[in-house]
Amino acid sequence: MSTLEERVRCKELLSKVKTPEECIEFFKDDMDVGMSGFTPVGYPKVVPIALCDHVEKNNLQGKLRLNLFIGASIGSEVEDRMATLDMIDRRWPYQTGKNLGKAINKGQIRMGDKHLSMFPQDLKYGFYTKEKGGGLDMAVIEASAITEEGNIILSGAVGAAPEIIDVADKIIVEINTGLPSFEGMHDILLTDLPPFRKILPVTDLRQRIGTPWVPTDKSKIVAIVESKLPDNGRALRGTDDVAQAIADNIVDFFQSEVKAGRLPKNLLPLQSGVGSIANAVVGGLTASPFEDLTVFTEVLQDTFLPFLDSGKCKYINCTSLSLSNEAFVDWWKNFETYKNMVMMRPQQISNNPELIRRMGVIGMNTPLEFDMYAHANSTHAGGTRMLNGIGGSGDFIRNAYISIMHCPACRATKNDEFGITGVVPKVPHVDHTEHDIDVLVTDQGLADLRGLAPIDRARVVIDKCAHPAYKDYMYDYLERATKATGGHHEPQLLDECYKMHLSFAQNGTMRFWEK
Amino acid sequence: MSTLEERVRCKELLSKVKTPEECIEFFKDDMDVGMSGFTPVGYPKVVPIALCDHVEKNNLQGKLRLNLFIGASIGSEVEDRMATLDMIDRRWPYQTGKNLGKAINKGQIRMGDKHLSMFPQDLKYGFYTKEKGGGLDMAVIEASAITEEGNIILSGAVGAAPEIIDVADKIIVEINTGLPSFEGMHDILLTDLPPFRKILPVTDLRQRIGTPWVPTDKSKIVAIVESKLPDNGRALRGTDDVAQAIADNIVDFFQSEVKAGRLPKNLLPLQSGVGSIANAVVGGLTASPFEDLTVFTEVLQDTFLPFLDSGKCKYINCTSLSLSNEAFVDWWKNFETYKNMVMMRPQQISNNPELIRRMGVIGMNTPLEFDMYAHANSTHAGGTRMLNGIGGSGDFIRNAYISIMHCPACRATKNDEFGITGVVPKVPHVDHTEHDIDVLVTDQGLADLRGLAPIDRARVVIDKCAHPAYKDYMYDYLERATKATGGHHEPQLLDECYKMHLSFAQNGTMRFWEK
Repeated sequence: MSTLEERVRCKELLSKVKTPEECIEFFKDDMDVGMSGFTPVGYPKVVPIALCDHVEKNNLQGKLRLNLFIGASIGSEVEDRMATLDMIDRRWPYQTGKNLGKAINKGQIRMGDKHLSMFPQDLKYGFYTKEKGGGLDMAVIEASAITEEGNIILSGAVGAAPEIIDVADKIIVEINTGLPSFEGMHDILLTDLPPFRKILPVTDLRQRIGTPWVPTDKSKIVAIVESKLPDNGRALRGTDDVAQAIADNIVDFFQSEVKAGRLPKNLLPLQSGVGSIANAVVGGLTASPFEDLTVFTEVLQDTFLPFLDSGKCKYINCTSLSLSNEAFVDWWKNFETYKNMVMMRPQQISNNPELIRRMGVIGMNTPLEFDMYAHANSTHAGGTRMLNGIGGSGDFIRNAYISIMHCPACRATKNDEFGITGVVPKVPHVDHTEHDIDVLVTDQGLADLRGLAPIDRARVVIDKCAHPAYKDYMYDYLERATKATGGHHEPQLLDECYKMHLSFAQNGTMRFWEK
Repeated sequence: MSTLEERVRCKELLSKVKTPEECIEFFKDDMDVGMSGFTPVGYPKVVPIALCDHVEKNNLQGKLRLNLFIGASIGSEVEDRMATLDMIDRRWPYQTGKNLGKAINKGQIRMGDKHLSMFPQDLKYGFYTKEKGGGLDMAVIEASAITEEGNIILSGAVGAAPEIIDVADKIIVEINTGLPSFEGMHDILLTDLPPFRKILPVTDLRQRIGTPWVPTDKSKIVAIVESKLPDNGRALRGTDDVAQAIADNIVDFFQSEVKAGRLPKNLLPLQSGVGSIANAVVGGLTASPFEDLTVFTEVLQDTFLPFLDSGKCKYINCTSLSLSNEAFVDWWKNFETYKNMVMMRPQQISNNPELIRRMGVIGMNTPLEFDMYAHANSTHAGGTRMLNGIGGSGDFIRNAYISIMHCPACRATKNDEFGITGVVPKVPHVDHTEHDIDVLVTDQGLADLRGLAPIDRARVVIDKCAHPAYKDYMYDYLERATKATGGHHEPQLLDECYKMHLSFAQNGTMRFWEK
């Protein structure tokens, strides 16, 4: 029996086995297509690649455009190539990719940017495709296996796949036999329509509330395709002095919070965004005296593996294994151990306000920049150019026990070693508001804003977080704005607040006062 | 037996009965004081008024300043007078009052502005008074009665009173014998510290999950004071043509959503903010063919009474009876009926994301202004001057099934009948983001933004919502911004985006192009 035959345990479905090329006929221009996958793991590969080849060979660029609904980002060999071939009209709710980003920022692809916990529910509610009565035309799903009853067992990510499978008219399943099966690691619960949504009865991360497979109407499965392609995982990210300084500030803060009795000795479930700062924070915790830690987060990154190995971290909930190819080697080597320490749930649940607030998650995320009153810009460079999307940052920052945002105080540009500041008078796009953020951190220091009114907050943010190259201007701005408004609650100068951003666009540095 | 003796059923507490004047000695400069009350009902009166008299008589202005922690706004005869007498240093998390607002906007009172569902939990977590190790020095609570065991039965609002009673070192209880008792209408659950917070097991608005009284450590009660003063209720608000047009647009939208199968016939639990538009919407629903409606909201306003009387509305959850004095007359006349149709819960629960998302609440709130990409400003006029605070709008708008924001397309100023537009290129303060808002409404029309990318969204918002006096400029701005950025995801002109606001500040009209 081939591996494919072993994995497809519902034998009647074996009659649906097709080649990737045989699936091309299922796709038509303007179709609403959902795919599995999340930052970039667990996404379908051979079918979309065959579709790309088909478009390229037959010069169908711009003539076979799909509306893509995918939990978060997927591999560039799939989606970025689709963007290059002008195969995407709409894209929800997040994306990563050079050509994809370019197409979005010249109006060729119409992207929608939504909290990752809300995307699957709104998809289920029929909001994104309401002109067609809701639902999706097609789901393309990477799976490890199919159960005897025809239910889909996902691979390295859950994301929005359960809701996509639920609402799609037809389903193509790619069984990835190139990888071991992830069976047993998922905990799946579908989203119901209100007023019949259920309580999420999790009070301990170890509790299962769903099934290890996605409840699937097997009559909707139109094709089963074998794939052996690996995930085009994240590049391995190192850390650097700036990330390390930020991480040190955060670990110190945790220690003082424990001392003050505002955090238990083993902290509270940790959420950390992606990137080098998050890696450094987890590295810092691995080296710290903290014990019995748990993680309730969106994606499991490389540094979580040594964190688990160290015995410091006891259990992780996530929705995706966002590992580099190097880390995946370790993952599979110790799979039997990790499997008992990691549970993957749908992004609707991994990022759910109900659980984040109940369990008192400590949220840590990196914006592009934040302002002195504690508004943060996570999505739009210069206020206008989409980077990736808000992702899950809003789910966590709004609902966390302590909401921490961190970024470098300053970064170099081509013509100024201090050309970009992370701390500005007013962010040109707001994704997270002053009502949500408790603590701001840079490599310069940590500003604990809990209980502070805006002007007091601004002083602390400038004092603790701003880079020395920007401090004088920031203090001066705050003073002039306070004077000009007569001490308003949140002083700003509307004709000057974006002068640094305009300067950057024109002169490549935000320090407009340095000529 | 006097009414006071009847109401204080824990007889040992009768030894604590004091006059308001005898309570003055409990208050010292720089104390952290929590009070009951919510928009403005159920707040203590005789004790703070005695304290104001004391300050006034003895010229203690600026020498007895308190940090006030109160669920939302309270009566002006108490708080606004305290502001006038310079008796407030810090104030969280919301406020209403002429002199209070003035003091906040000249830097005399340091206000913090927080989501109303988060304020009580953060108070419990010790975040607002962390320099003193958390907690409050004093709670001043209006109550209907005290049980045999010494537990407090609140009056016309719950708000943050349970958490305030929980964390305060000392408690002064004002028993309001001038009003009938509200006993039996409250459903109280205290906030636990994570990781031990409990599931909120509500799947039907009628379910009680707590007790009808606030669990109270009676040894903390230092005084019981009789009060006969009524609440200084909201002024009766009528409706007008603009509010009516907005309400009509919303009721039409509900009908088309039911027709499309995206809402059940009896809709979903409704939340509506305060003010004339909310009144008109509820009035519109009372006159509509909808039946078996329910309400899950923050405050019960005047128009909810005829809504209940009509039989259209079956049940209401709220945290406060924000009624005018006129409506309170009806309330008490039919109290035995209303009591079975209304439940008041703590604001931490009335506004909780867990319940709002689970039950699929329809959220409707009025910002000051919104922008073409669907960011809304609810708090800061001109981006700098605090109005009242974000209140519960963020709790609902973020978590609702459908999030609706509505405001007049345009308002008159002294020198221009169309001097202020509600639809701007970019709001100068963001309280609600594009990631949260589904539908925008003005008297001009309704823009359904679900599934739309930013530029498509902007076109619909200008087309449907903007006032004719502003449409040409808005279209022109969008076009120029799109051209200038080369079609970025969210085009803006950072050197022009606030030109309308600057014009208003200088010339009293946002139409800078009309000279």
